[in-house]
Amino acid sequence: MNIVVQKYGGTSVGNIDRIQNVAKRIIKKKEENHKIVVVVSAMGDNTDKLLEMAYQISENPPKREIDMLISTGEQVSIALLSMALNSMGHQAISLTGSQVGIKTTGHHTKSRIADIDDSTIKKHLKEDKIVIVAGFQGANEESDITTLGRGGSDTSAVAIASKLQCPCEIYTDVDGIYSLDPRVYPNAKKLDVISYEEMLEMASLGAGIMHTRAIELGQKYHIPIIVASSMGEKPGTVIKESEKNMESAVITGLAIDNNDVMITLNHVPYSIRTTADIFDSLAKKDINIDMISQTSPQDNSVSISFTTPKSELSDTRDILAFLAKKYPQISYGINEDISKLSVVGIGMRSHSGVAAQIFVLLAKAGIEVQMVTTSEIKISYAIDSADQQKAVNLIADAFEL
Amino acid sequence: MNIVVQKYGGTSVGNIDRIQNVAKRIIKKKEENHKIVVVVSAMGDNTDKLLEMAYQISENPPKREIDMLISTGEQVSIALLSMALNSMGHQAISLTGSQVGIKTTGHHTKSRIADIDDSTIKKHLKEDKIVIVAGFQGANEESDITTLGRGGSDTSAVAIASKLQCPCEIYTDVDGIYSLDPRVYPNAKKLDVISYEEMLEMASLGAGIMHTRAIELGQKYHIPIIVASSMGEKPGTVIKESEKNMESAVITGLAIDNNDVMITLNHVPYSIRTTADIFDSLAKKDINIDMISQTSPQDNSVSISFTTPKSELSDTRDILAFLAKKYPQISYGINEDISKLSVVGIGMRSHSGVAAQIFVLLAKAGIEVQMVTTSEIKISYAIDSADQQKAVNLIADAFEL
Repeated sequence: MNIVVQKYGGTSVGNIDRIQNVAKRIIKKKEENHKIVVVVSAMGDNTDKLLEMAYQISENPPKREIDMLISTGEQVSIALLSMALNSMGHQAISLTGSQVGIKTTGHHTKSRIADIDDSTIKKHLKEDKIVIVAGFQGANEESDITTLGRGGSDTSAVAIASKLQCPCEIYTDVDGIYSLDPRVYPNAKKLDVISYEEMLEMASLGAGIMHTRAIELGQKYHIPIIVASSMGEKPGTVIKESEKNMESAVITGLAIDNNDVMITLNHVPYSIRTTADIFDSLAKKDINIDMISQTSPQDNSVSISFTTPKSELSDTRDILAFLAKKYPQISYGINEDISKLSVVGIGMRSHSGVAAQIFVLLAKAGIEVQMVTTSEIKISYAIDSADQQKAVNLIADAFEL
Repeated sequence: MNIVVQKYGGTSVGNIDRIQNVAKRIIKKKEENHKIVVVVSAMGDNTDKLLEMAYQISENPPKREIDMLISTGEQVSIALLSMALNSMGHQAISLTGSQVGIKTTGHHTKSRIADIDDSTIKKHLKEDKIVIVAGFQGANEESDITTLGRGGSDTSAVAIASKLQCPCEIYTDVDGIYSLDPRVYPNAKKLDVISYEEMLEMASLGAGIMHTRAIELGQKYHIPIIVASSMGEKPGTVIKESEKNMESAVITGLAIDNNDVMITLNHVPYSIRTTADIFDSLAKKDINIDMISQTSPQDNSVSISFTTPKSELSDTRDILAFLAKKYPQISYGINEDISKLSVVGIGMRSHSGVAAQIFVLLAKAGIEVQMVTTSEIKISYAIDSADQQKAVNLIADAFEL
């Protein structure tokens, strides 16, 4: 079977007209002799509206009930899209995450896909139906409805494509992957191709567009992922294996992230046990830590800084309070006004000195770097939010992004 | 276990404040040492809004997808109510119809409950949780989500109470069952008690408030049903077995129904086979027929009139067109401006002449009766909608309702 998985985001199905437009695109693909599985997000800001009601009721609603609540958003979309396809004369069937056999593990509101039972999808595809699957959701071992975290529909789509061993097309409100956010730097270039590795760094660093786990899955199962606009007919960007003989640019992209806060713990007792305990406490609550830096010990204590998403600040505060009680000598500060810039490029493997080059650029402009972390193909700088635009312009100009 | 099932309708959970109010009522009952199962409808006009979107997409959306769509309404309510209870310090858990093991048979959008696997409910009740169940929905053998038709939440509630052998409290926006609709006849009396049989007639005749199947279930399993307001503390009306030594009023209530249309088929060939075929065609599409009358044969053909809900007019038209093709001699008319008045009372068993008395009342006022049907404890009259108010006043005054 010539299968393809298509995923349409919330904006693409934001109203009835757009749902009908999506239905037409699906039919076009179907008439090119494809079997199609469609993964859909909730309509527009539906999820936010549902969450707003939840937080009117409780500051800290049980996460199981959050999942019960917000999973309805995708259920509405799949039903409406299936109706649109049926009304256009094509057999379609909508399936919730639970019905489609998406089995998850982990905590509510940020579950992970453990496995997909693809027999239901395959059965309907064989009957020549278009299968419409609710993205972002699944069910755990207790048959409770779970969700995969923001952007989880991408993960649903690539996971299904991985299981079916077919390409995955992600349709969204941008026409591809850019070297950096065109809203911040209007001359940003659209990329035709990007490697999984580069895209992973871009995504995990807040370049938006795609969910990290989705790209990891694509990489693991060698599934080409096409990111394109749900409106026009432009080709978009293909995410795939890096080509070895390709003469890469030093830097492929610049990711900008304003969604993190920086936490600094001072006077942390200098012992592996304490450091491990701190990060273990955070991990137990599933709090994502991104950048981490630690000073060298002085008077047998160290300072530890790390960044974490703003969305997890409430949980993080709880743990910080707990840790401050457990280790009375620790004091901590939270900086909510940081901006994280990350340059990403496979070319960095063969070009040294990029970090130094950027340090010089920023220093000349009087921009203070609060934290730096590096990996093989990326360097991240945490700076004051106020300096963001200036820093972006400097880097983008210097590296012709 | 001292279990009680409570059901709250859409108006009662129409906004966040009301949901919190409902949570408080539940907690009050819980603190009176009850184990509680709560069945909830969709918030306010949520179901209508969802249906509106569906009909913007298609005139005749697949009913399976309608169920997928509208079942989200109750799922939102149960999640929010559970959050409210948890935030007030009480353990609660929300369950969809499918999760709670409500197994249905029959057609989508009007399924019937085949069985309930009460093990999940009992497990949570044992753990002293308040169990919040999505009304109006279940799942069929194919694990497709199904709904029970308008007002189906009442059926869900009484079915669960029947399975658990406990009383069922239906909380709504009226404070009990009235002899007739107080909006039509302001002096209508609230009843303290009404028998299942009388209530069945009232409900099936469009007196609103309660779903017929819910009352049938209560009668079958001897479950007392209490109908009361979700706002105040007034006692409401108890629906239960009729007390044999009770000296009943001749007429307990008057039901008014404007939701039916009258179909008249003329020149129907006079044969059992044809008549059976007509009603069989309607039954196959699950169209509810209420009043039926047939003229005595003339020239070997008869006229048949029947009433059916306006909501089923579209399906009914399809079948009429089909029948008119099959039996070219048949002509048919549809009267959408009829009003059905039904007087109901166990007392009619021992009092004859009620039908005649009402005929005289109506005739004196110049009101033409289009159709009459009678049962042991009720008489229904179809009249022109324009005559409705006059007829209601005449009957209510005459029988002191």
